[in-house]
Amino acid sequence: LPVVFLALTHHPVYNKNREVIASALTTVDLHDLARVAATYGLDGFYVVQPLDDQRRLAADMIAHWQSGPGGAYNRDRAEAMALARLTASLAEAKDDIARRCGRPPLAVATTAISRPGAISYSAVRQTWTDGRPVLIVFGTAWGLADQAMAECDACLAPIVGPGDYNHLSVRSAAGIIIDRLLGRSDDDANQGR
Amino acid sequence: LPVVFLALTHHPVYNKNREVIASALTTVDLHDLARVAATYGLDGFYVVQPLDDQRRLAADMIAHWQSGPGGAYNRDRAEAMALARLTASLAEAKDDIARRCGRPPLAVATTAISRPGAISYSAVRQTWTDGRPVLIVFGTAWGLADQAMAECDACLAPIVGPGDYNHLSVRSAAGIIIDRLLGRSDDDANQGR
Repeated sequence: LPVVFLALTHHPVYNKNREVIASALTTVDLHDLARVAATYGLDGFYVVQPLDDQRRLAADMIAHWQSGPGGAYNRDRAEAMALARLTASLAEAKDDIARRCGRPPLAVATTAISRPGAISYSAVRQTWTDGRPVLIVFGTAWGLADQAMAECDACLAPIVGPGDYNHLSVRSAAGIIIDRLLGRSDDDANQGR
Repeated sequence: LPVVFLALTHHPVYNKNREVIASALTTVDLHDLARVAATYGLDGFYVVQPLDDQRRLAADMIAHWQSGPGGAYNRDRAEAMALARLTASLAEAKDDIARRCGRPPLAVATTAISRPGAISYSAVRQTWTDGRPVLIVFGTAWGLADQAMAECDACLAPIVGPGDYNHLSVRSAAGIIIDRLLGRSDDDANQGR
């Protein structure tokens, strides 16, 4: 089985005016990405947040849903939240994967904007054949800043529709991208893919 | 081009204890599904909400983002929200599509649970060849109740991962399902699909 991790990055990302910021926690993002990770059998979900108070808030929230009253109320959320790990930086997430897997991951950035050299979904799947772990990196706010891109080994081609509109939420985009990489629809089965 | 609509249904849906309820509005659901609809060039997005006060709240929210201060602040949200229409029932949404398109849609339910007779993504795509509009119906809370299923013409096969976990948010699931139906990845292009 491929070894795949998700990262939800709160810094360095852009705001609306393309300034580099650390974004605030959005609780529904943590739930939704943890649920994507659990559905597709991923190996972990990193919440990358450099702000100490925001990281403490994330830790409280994860504990609430994993072992606190939230977990007792809704076991499905507890199961998903068990995949979450907090780090202060993307580098720390990559180091953690290297420790867990014995080798560093291929870090793959995601973007809503076409970039030269972006790689295909099948190219990412090919890295699995040699057993290297893969970390798919998502940005919050207006997306990963260039310095986050520079910390990744590759950038995945954006999701494009028939028009110019390219403003999916990270909640929807993460589902789509992980499904394209790992999902198997009945149609695929019919086509023997 | 295929004529496709989304519906986000707040009644009849199940709660945690499998009782039929009308669920409350979740503003992030409206944003995320509107953004999925805008990205994939859909023809409209119905918010099905039978509770008058909740429908008024939805109307206020849509107006805020479409023509109010929200729309001035973020034009991308205005563009997506322009696709939203409020109805009190699924039947009303189907009637509206019949009026707009000159024929009733094929209403396709979605579910997280395997059901006998569920149809494939390619089967839905085949209905497009004869020009019939398609309405993809999503449930809030714990999913569409049986009586909502009965109002649909077909039910789409669920998204399944390698394990048993099947608790995606409607925000992620809507992205995945619309992408499977309408998305074209670089890989597909390479494969000439």
